[in-house]
Amino acid sequence: RTAFRAVLDRGVDGLISCHDDLTLLPDDIPVVLFQQRHPRCDSIVRDGETAMRRAVEYLLGLGHRKLGTVCLDRQRFEALINGVLGDHGVATPALWANSARKAHIDAARACMGQILALPPAERPTALICRNDTTAMAVISTAGEHGLVVPRDFSVIGSDDVSLGAVTNPPLTTFGVPPAELARRLVDLLFRRLQEPAAPIKEYLLQQKLIERASCAQPRGCCNRPVPGEEKYGRWV
Amino acid sequence: RTAFRAVLDRGVDGLISCHDDLTLLPDDIPVVLFQQRHPRCDSIVRDGETAMRRAVEYLLGLGHRKLGTVCLDRQRFEALINGVLGDHGVATPALWANSARKAHIDAARACMGQILALPPAERPTALICRNDTTAMAVISTAGEHGLVVPRDFSVIGSDDVSLGAVTNPPLTTFGVPPAELARRLVDLLFRRLQEPAAPIKEYLLQQKLIERASCAQPRGCCNRPVPGEEKYGRWV
Repeated sequence: RTAFRAVLDRGVDGLISCHDDLTLLPDDIPVVLFQQRHPRCDSIVRDGETAMRRAVEYLLGLGHRKLGTVCLDRQRFEALINGVLGDHGVATPALWANSARKAHIDAARACMGQILALPPAERPTALICRNDTTAMAVISTAGEHGLVVPRDFSVIGSDDVSLGAVTNPPLTTFGVPPAELARRLVDLLFRRLQEPAAPIKEYLLQQKLIERASCAQPRGCCNRPVPGEEKYGRWV
Repeated sequence: RTAFRAVLDRGVDGLISCHDDLTLLPDDIPVVLFQQRHPRCDSIVRDGETAMRRAVEYLLGLGHRKLGTVCLDRQRFEALINGVLGDHGVATPALWANSARKAHIDAARACMGQILALPPAERPTALICRNDTTAMAVISTAGEHGLVVPRDFSVIGSDDVSLGAVTNPPLTTFGVPPAELARRLVDLLFRRLQEPAAPIKEYLLQQKLIERASCAQPRGCCNRPVPGEEKYGRWV
């Protein structure tokens, strides 16, 4: 609250916030939220479901048929992922690896333990991770077991942290282009300042696939993507 | 300044700061600085020179004789590093790779370009990096050229960022144990509150070697460390 007040004391007309405690929001000026929702505020939220659908389709396009997930919200994504798999004729549901550990790094390591406990032939050939930190921990843990990404399995992240560009291998992930996000947040705030009584809006922002080097065709797969799958893995 | 004021408005008696603009410091309460110096303030500064000396000795202990540096401050460290090498009978000075690029990641990539342009036999077998982000970029760039750390060369970082534990391979680095740093900062502030007129103190805090997996003996080196070198690579 003090931090909000410190900003407001400088005489600002409006605020863009990604603070997760919505009770702290000042109620006397317009506020635009990112990744949060509040009945009084315009907001921009990443379209996680669409990104997930595209991640699955991207991996299918590379030839993967046995997918695994690491630390994903099961309630939110399991039906969606298995639905996409089913739509493409893949009957095997995604292997769900979860851990109750709070830190992303610890949880990812625990999940990798579950996956590596499987016989090699039963392991997923591609892993969809909750975020880039989780993906980094997955790649690191794999390396400690002598497994090489993407030779032995593919890994896709989410959120596009800047260090994802310098993981080993560089991380394929989904991310919101920062300039586009900033422009939309500012547009939304200016619109609110000009029309204070306009109805509250929520924008669902698409994430872009950032293809680096952590995903490849599964081992022994020489299939080229069929023509209809060409759209997978393009910039939107 | 507003942020400082916001904290002070809550009625604090003293402040611990690592802010790099010393003109913003409040002058009416005690302030303890981390990694900064100001004639009016007690401070704790990491002992970078000792860490560097120990990094060189650690790599020598593993059998490395051709060292390289990535983005290190040449004026500050070159004589020191070559001095340690000379003390151990190594006449070859460290290869100095630097880049004018501002971002650590870009600079590290440029430096790796310089190193990889050398014939393999002339390349350093171990690289000392300015910080962990630089080390991550070095490992990543190496991977893109088919080189594997630490099989093809060793990499040591500095600063111990939390993600260093999940690089591939996990990063060997130097770091200040956070709990110890916090305790010393608080001790220093309490001492100042109790004895406002005590002389200003500067503590030089030792960093600890965090041995993970990015350093190994150089290829083809089967030397075990000689007994006198056993101290290299121990926790201080």
